[in-house]
Amino acid sequence: MPIEPSKQLETFPNPHPNNSYTVRFTTTEFTTVCPLTGQPDFAQISVEYEPDQSCLESKSIKLYLWSFRNEGHFHEDVTNILLNDMVRACSPRWMNVTGHFNIRGGIDFNITARYEKSRP
Amino acid sequence: MPIEPSKQLETFPNPHPNNSYTVRFTTTEFTTVCPLTGQPDFAQISVEYEPDQSCLESKSIKLYLWSFRNEGHFHEDVTNILLNDMVRACSPRWMNVTGHFNIRGGIDFNITARYEKSRP
Amino acid sequence: MPIEPSKQLETFPNPHPNNSYTVRFTTTEFTTVCPLTGQPDFAQISVEYEPDQSCLESKSIKLYLWSFRNEGHFHEDVTNILLNDMVRACSPRWMNVTGHFNIRGGIDFNITARYEKSRP
Amino acid sequence: MPIEPSKQLETFPNPHPNNSYTVRFTTTEFTTVCPLTGQPDFAQISVEYEPDQSCLESKSIKLYLWSFRNEGHFHEDVTNILLNDMVRACSPRWMNVTGHFNIRGGIDFNITARYEKSRP
Amino acid sequence: MPIEPSKQLETFPNPHPNNSYTVRFTTTEFTTVCPLTGQPDFAQISVEYEPDQSCLESKSIKLYLWSFRNEGHFHEDVTNILLNDMVRACSPRWMNVTGHFNIRGGIDFNITARYEKSRP
Amino acid sequence: MPIEPSKQLETFPNPHPNNSYTVRFTTTEFTTVCPLTGQPDFAQISVEYEPDQSCLESKSIKLYLWSFRNEGHFHEDVTNILLNDMVRACSPRWMNVTGHFNIRGGIDFNITARYEKSRP
Amino acid sequence: MPIEPSKQLETFPNPHPNNSYTVRFTTTEFTTVCPLTGQPDFAQISVEYEPDQSCLESKSIKLYLWSFRNEGHFHEDVTNILLNDMVRACSPRWMNVTGHFNIRGGIDFNITARYEKSRP
Amino acid sequence: MPIEPSKQLETFPNPHPNNSYTVRFTTTEFTTVCPLTGQPDFAQISVEYEPDQSCLESKSIKLYLWSFRNEGHFHEDVTNILLNDMVRACSPRWMNVTGHFNIRGGIDFNITARYEKSRP
Amino acid sequence: MPIEPSKQLETFPNPHPNNSYTVRFTTTEFTTVCPLTGQPDFAQISVEYEPDQSCLESKSIKLYLWSFRNEGHFHEDVTNILLNDMVRACSPRWMNVTGHFNIRGGIDFNITARYEKSRP
Amino acid sequence: MPIEPSKQLETFPNPHPNNSYTVRFTTTEFTTVCPLTGQPDFAQISVEYEPDQSCLESKSIKLYLWSFRNEGHFHEDVTNILLNDMVRACSPRWMNVTGHFNIRGGIDFNITARYEKSRP
Repeated sequence: MPIEPSKQLETFPNPHPNNSYTVRFTTTEFTTVCPLTGQPDFAQISVEYEPDQSCLESKSIKLYLWSFRNEGHFHEDVTNILLNDMVRACSPRWMNVTGHFNIRGGIDFNITARYEKSRP
Repeated sequence: MPIEPSKQLETFPNPHPNNSYTVRFTTTEFTTVCPLTGQPDFAQISVEYEPDQSCLESKSIKLYLWSFRNEGHFHEDVTNILLNDMVRACSPRWMNVTGHFNIRGGIDFNITARYEKSRP
Repeated sequence: MPIEPSKQLETFPNPHPNNSYTVRFTTTEFTTVCPLTGQPDFAQISVEYEPDQSCLESKSIKLYLWSFRNEGHFHEDVTNILLNDMVRACSPRWMNVTGHFNIRGGIDFNITARYEKSRP
Repeated sequence: MPIEPSKQLETFPNPHPNNSYTVRFTTTEFTTVCPLTGQPDFAQISVEYEPDQSCLESKSIKLYLWSFRNEGHFHEDVTNILLNDMVRACSPRWMNVTGHFNIRGGIDFNITARYEKSRP
Repeated sequence: MPIEPSKQLETFPNPHPNNSYTVRFTTTEFTTVCPLTGQPDFAQISVEYEPDQSCLESKSIKLYLWSFRNEGHFHEDVTNILLNDMVRACSPRWMNVTGHFNIRGGIDFNITARYEKSRP
Repeated sequence: MPIEPSKQLETFPNPHPNNSYTVRFTTTEFTTVCPLTGQPDFAQISVEYEPDQSCLESKSIKLYLWSFRNEGHFHEDVTNILLNDMVRACSPRWMNVTGHFNIRGGIDFNITARYEKSRP
Repeated sequence: MPIEPSKQLETFPNPHPNNSYTVRFTTTEFTTVCPLTGQPDFAQISVEYEPDQSCLESKSIKLYLWSFRNEGHFHEDVTNILLNDMVRACSPRWMNVTGHFNIRGGIDFNITARYEKSRP
Repeated sequence: MPIEPSKQLETFPNPHPNNSYTVRFTTTEFTTVCPLTGQPDFAQISVEYEPDQSCLESKSIKLYLWSFRNEGHFHEDVTNILLNDMVRACSPRWMNVTGHFNIRGGIDFNITARYEKSRP
Repeated sequence: MPIEPSKQLETFPNPHPNNSYTVRFTTTEFTTVCPLTGQPDFAQISVEYEPDQSCLESKSIKLYLWSFRNEGHFHEDVTNILLNDMVRACSPRWMNVTGHFNIRGGIDFNITARYEKSRP
Repeated sequence: MPIEPSKQLETFPNPHPNNSYTVRFTTTEFTTVCPLTGQPDFAQISVEYEPDQSCLESKSIKLYLWSFRNEGHFHEDVTNILLNDMVRACSPRWMNVTGHFNIRGGIDFNITARYEKSRP
């Protein structure tokens, strides 16, 4: 039964909205292609957030990260796209996304993008 | 002599209530079952708290954690349940509970739930 | 859709029977209960073998290891049971099974059981 | 200037055929798809060989490994395919190929396939 | 020439009372007995403090820690006893004592007790 | 219920006498006293053996190692005493005992004693 | 096609100027020569910054770091030169540059230079 | 050509007095003798400071640390002497000196002494 | 006083020709340029040998390795050149040279070349 | 009470001459001076041997290693001197001595000298 990548991030209602807690998840299995040469790029992605009313559903996270596999992206750009998409999906109190990209030309890159919900 | 798991957390009076100190305990031996598929899940659990009038008794901690072995729980939920149960048992000044769940689908999850006693 | 543990180890035909190669797999998610007290035991299990005509199928390995979850076993015994069952299932040229059992009473145990096919 | 993956492994003449030496190379950037579900798989690939008359050219190694990115392969099979292709390309005195595949279902797999030139 | 354990902590005058500095010492060689079963317990002890007018003398620290070898103590209690005794001996500006107790029943414990001199 | 140290090593019949396997156990909780000064010594003890007809029972190993707590022993001597006692108790095919003694005077010591059953 | 080192740092427009994020890159491949003896020096260079309107382009970073290969520089000086050049190129909100220089005469040096944009 | 140890710490003018930066250097090659027994003591020394108008010259640091080789010093004392001498030599904005002394009697010591220039 | 790189490896007479011993030295400070693009390459070099009548002098090793800094070399070639030059200089009983080259295109290379003196 | 370094290595009778065992000891506290410049050199020394009729006494090992503190020695030479002296003192079945000398000029050295008693 083939499974498909998907840009659609699913959420479920925060089961403990009165508790203060953070969720952090990490994968070493993120890959895109270089927008200039078409060659594969690889990164470790870590996400940390404090849920407000919704939590990101773990299987849809997997399919969402998979959806970048054949897309061309620059490091700074894709890290922020991940942040923006996940923030839009679950509207957390705050979220950090870090992409740790493999060595190219003797240099490795870490990008950390941050979101914080503005207080009313 | 068979021993039974138990939801009952025992406490003993804080032997140094005038000292400020923290207790941290960690186990790599926490397992539940997935509420969707019934397959086993595994996690490392770390708890850190500052005792007020009571301390959690170590043998009852072991039996309490064991009591989740055949129950179905989602990661975010069970971490907060552990926090709520332990807070109710010993009424600490503050407590943090972290569940570090094993890799599933290439992604590992860390949930950290926090409690702080409101000041009168 | 609930999934069931199973003692049935599945195999598939060795896709490269003319090559010499070894397969090693490891899990940190093995748990039994103590036959004396009924309390949970935990171990890391590593298996290494050289396939002859058959390879062990990975999903059935998972269900097989899961089938020990509620059984009572001593360390030396269960490590050899794992070896005997897997040898019977896939008839390898040789196989090693190692169980690394968690610390109890300040002592940890490693058991390594070995099988080698007798030459005709 | 887009670059293309390629199954074509290039070689260059061994610059020191009278010396005895080994070449080992490793990448953490190998990915295929699961032949059953179509989902991505990831592995670290290590190759070690003793050149005879030819050495594997490093850029073509990169393009060759990339060529598996959208193909469906089982672990045992693809490790042996890598060995067979590289042996055919450079005809080494001996070669080992190891694929260390990421955790799936709580289990990780290491496959090591070996080739040795038969002596005349 | 036999040496004796001793509860007597010796001090010497702070040689640089006008400097601000901290002293941290650590031993992996601390052992007591369980007050319930009489079986040995083991811990790593770390102490950090800022001297005021006196410093703890290192040989007497060794004999003092040794004096607990045949005494029965609970983890939370003995960590605070160490703190209280050392604070009484050298009257530091502040002191932290951490006991990291070996795994029992699959759980390890860290207790950190803190003292801070009240400002006049 | 107080428990007592004991020089008596218990065994149980090898449950798989037709399999070839090794048992290795390790503890960081071994302590004696220096025969010259009476001060505590600490070591990590590792034992590895191949059972013949009997296996060492794990609880009696704990009580046996504990029995050295108040005895005075030199490093080379006690490591061989451990070997001789355990060999006598379970008559293994072979056994290695390693004592890794903590740093004294800037030097740490590792002693490894070996036994091999003479073939008839 | 020979490539040339270059002091010219290229930038590209910040693709997410409304997000707050940091970029960190590290290389172990930085070398200069000692201004006194002409002998090679080696360092690991780490740079961390928060982009304002521009980001440093990664290929030009590589060529820029390469341009120091045959120049004579003292540790404290070159770390600040790197900071000043990179700040001038991309005008970040803040930037840190760390040079970790290899052991010479038994001593290793870490220099961390910091820039922060003054607020209007 | 013999080289001599020296208490004389050389400095050079801070090449970037308008930048804010820190210098950290570490050696594992510091040795003194015990003032009571004359036996050698060994430590790792780390120094971190923010230069004001002067920087410590690296060769003179080596000769300065060497000058303690045959002197008798207690741990707390010598760490503060190092701080005081280096502060006097280069008048930094702040400086930390840490001495990590090797295990004696099963205990290791870390002393960290701190200096901060008083603001006018 | 400027120092010059040199292809000239100096030796000194083996001070213990009747002892059997090996010498191993390692540097992380080896750099060449790519013969195709002129860009810098970096490697860790390890050499191990058993002296016969002569030993390699350490300062000349440093100047010899430096002499490759501006030369273009492929990995397999330069590792064997190092071996051949050093064997010619000191005529050891045997020698191994390993070059561990930094990641390029996601792949790192280790080359180990071996020499053994033919017995008369 | 001052203690003196000493070239005199003491031994005691092997307490288990019928057992086969090895003794390994390691210190990070070995220092000599360079015979050319008089500057301090530092090394980790490891010794491994199988006792025959005598064992090296540990306190005399400490005083013996200390006796090199103000002597000038080359690396290859001093490692073999250590071996020769210790072999002469205790006449072991075999002995290995390894000196791991700290980095000088970017290169570290390991010397391993070996002795084996000739069989009658």
